[in-house]
Amino acid sequence: MDNIDQYLQKFKSIKRSTCGTINIDPLQRGGILTDEARAALVEWGDGYSICDFCPGALDQIKTPPIHDFIHKALPRFLGIDEARVTNGARESKFAIMHSMTKDGDWIVLDQSAHYSSYVAAQRARLNIKAVPNSGSPDYRTEADGYADTIEEVIRESGNSPTLALVTYPDGNYGNLPDVKKIAAICHQYDVPLILNGAYSVGRMPVNAKELGVDFIVGSGHKSMAASGPIGVLGVSEEYSGKVFEKSPTNKAKEIEMLGCTARGATIMTMLASFPKVVERTRHWDEEVENARWFSSQLEGLGLVQMGDKPHNHDLMFFEAPVLYEMSQTAKGGRYFLYKELKARRIHGIKAGLTKFFKLSTFGVSRDDLETVVSAFDEIINP
Amino acid sequence: MDNIDQYLQKFKSIKRSTCGTINIDPLQRGGILTDEARAALVEWGDGYSICDFCPGALDQIKTPPIHDFIHKALPRFLGIDEARVTNGARESKFAIMHSMTKDGDWIVLDQSAHYSSYVAAQRARLNIKAVPNSGSPDYRTEADGYADTIEEVIRESGNSPTLALVTYPDGNYGNLPDVKKIAAICHQYDVPLILNGAYSVGRMPVNAKELGVDFIVGSGHKSMAASGPIGVLGVSEEYSGKVFEKSPTNKAKEIEMLGCTARGATIMTMLASFPKVVERTRHWDEEVENARWFSSQLEGLGLVQMGDKPHNHDLMFFEAPVLYEMSQTAKGGRYFLYKELKARRIHGIKAGLTKFFKLSTFGVSRDDLETVVSAFDEIINP
Repeated sequence: MDNIDQYLQKFKSIKRSTCGTINIDPLQRGGILTDEARAALVEWGDGYSICDFCPGALDQIKTPPIHDFIHKALPRFLGIDEARVTNGARESKFAIMHSMTKDGDWIVLDQSAHYSSYVAAQRARLNIKAVPNSGSPDYRTEADGYADTIEEVIRESGNSPTLALVTYPDGNYGNLPDVKKIAAICHQYDVPLILNGAYSVGRMPVNAKELGVDFIVGSGHKSMAASGPIGVLGVSEEYSGKVFEKSPTNKAKEIEMLGCTARGATIMTMLASFPKVVERTRHWDEEVENARWFSSQLEGLGLVQMGDKPHNHDLMFFEAPVLYEMSQTAKGGRYFLYKELKARRIHGIKAGLTKFFKLSTFGVSRDDLETVVSAFDEIINP
Repeated sequence: MDNIDQYLQKFKSIKRSTCGTINIDPLQRGGILTDEARAALVEWGDGYSICDFCPGALDQIKTPPIHDFIHKALPRFLGIDEARVTNGARESKFAIMHSMTKDGDWIVLDQSAHYSSYVAAQRARLNIKAVPNSGSPDYRTEADGYADTIEEVIRESGNSPTLALVTYPDGNYGNLPDVKKIAAICHQYDVPLILNGAYSVGRMPVNAKELGVDFIVGSGHKSMAASGPIGVLGVSEEYSGKVFEKSPTNKAKEIEMLGCTARGATIMTMLASFPKVVERTRHWDEEVENARWFSSQLEGLGLVQMGDKPHNHDLMFFEAPVLYEMSQTAKGGRYFLYKELKARRIHGIKAGLTKFFKLSTFGVSRDDLETVVSAFDEIINP
């Protein structure tokens, strides 16, 4: 350990250089803390602060009111029978997959699924079969694809897949597939369906029962104005005994939760933001309107928005041949767009991208959206 | 969702009632944030703040300097070849157990192991055989017990266990078993050994190589002055390929980490506190001295400290027949001790306990320890 000291100085007081920018990174928009969550961070920052009055398990804590959040507010918000908090949407997905399957079972998921859905299935040692999307320019996941893919699994393995998953919306194109129809198809084959709502739960109204899904997954740091990592997990009554099975040696502790999950300030920021998060889902129409306006403005500058059109979500993917063309001769090459935006205090499009990129307009004011549109206009028409 | 509004008001601005108390809960002492960590919380509180400049995986992030923390500072601190951050010590243990074993394999662990070690093994679908401790009053885990228990597994199953685990120290008595000897015994049987250092890593000097263990696990919120949930995981080179296997579909992402783990303010508080955490492990002798002084004072009042004697750790378990006796007639019954301490702004002994309880003196100033001793004196000798 003697040679450790050389590394220590750099860890002490690190600033976030993107503070004060307009951040249009899809990862960042829905996780910006409310003022209430910022106060909760300071109040509950110490390691295990929420455990001062623990009666045996995280979801049972009455002071602070975590029990009421997990067992009363959250199931209503998700439209499902039972809910828990986890260490993130991917941890929710793994908990479902691991508890519901045996090694070597099959899962069907959409080709547009987040990488972490694939990795969770790999960790659960499942075989994966993907429902293809329609490719450029729409990248649609069609409900009928689930029937075809389930049939394929049956042909190859002799059995139905144990689970299916649909991403709502996907993290690239912001497409919202027809989940009701997908759920109906999966249930015809007796396959329970997971809804990955990492980009919807906390941004827009989502109700598991109305959509007909058996499991619902959300992300606190992605879409519920919470400090990460934290996720939510909803399970229908039919499967809750299996997913939330208790330890034979420690009766208060659930095996898939490893006893307790988001045991710190993360859950307190989720609670603190929750009233505003509920409220903002009631104004989703305004977000969609902003996204469509922004898309039309960028298309007016020669960019092409891929995915659903008209668009129904703040997460959008653009093809920008005009910017790619400019990058061929621009100072900075393919980094020119990043630099030009940075000079205008706009962050969130990955450095080096010009031809294709994604962004989000969620919670960005119309003024700031106009600033972003003007920036693209100035860059394209200098 | 319409009936959700009734629950919202209570989540908005919740205060922590134990702020300002002397908190001697063993869970709480090592997770109290440094000033630097408090500043980091505010700076990096937003959901996915650390991912503004992500090159593909958490451990590869250069801005902020997470790469250097995980790949340079942390392995040196733990005395091991490869390290990662996880969502907690239990998640570290599960990642090891899950990647190293198949369903139905055997693990040997100490009877004094934390409940989460048992639950992690249950989640990994392992058979568990415990090394008994010596019982009251010492509750020692003897190294030779590992040989006996491994032999038992061989007799019952025909094979050596796949893994062994030792808790250093255990969370009840604060006992430090002879890990070097236990490691030597396990290795005679070719059984790799996990050190659960949730109460040692970040409090006292611990070096995996010197102790001879193959895996080391620590807790950020329990012992590294970090906001939870966050843990650390160290793996020797021999097993790192297996534990940190990459996804076949997503080459930057490690399967057992589900891609990325402590992806938020939790890791930034760990970084911010790290220089002071390293420093405090160098003054461990002062902590042991305080613990012994405190133990002797309480024994002078008729309490009996169980476990190692003289004691070598801040976590201590007391038998208090005198307080139990008083509770039989006291106002408040078995809650009298909790109330008496609360009236003196001392928190951390579970409400309702009088006969047996644990506490920690870690990082409590000598002045505050004297306040606690005086409180016990006043309560016992009113």
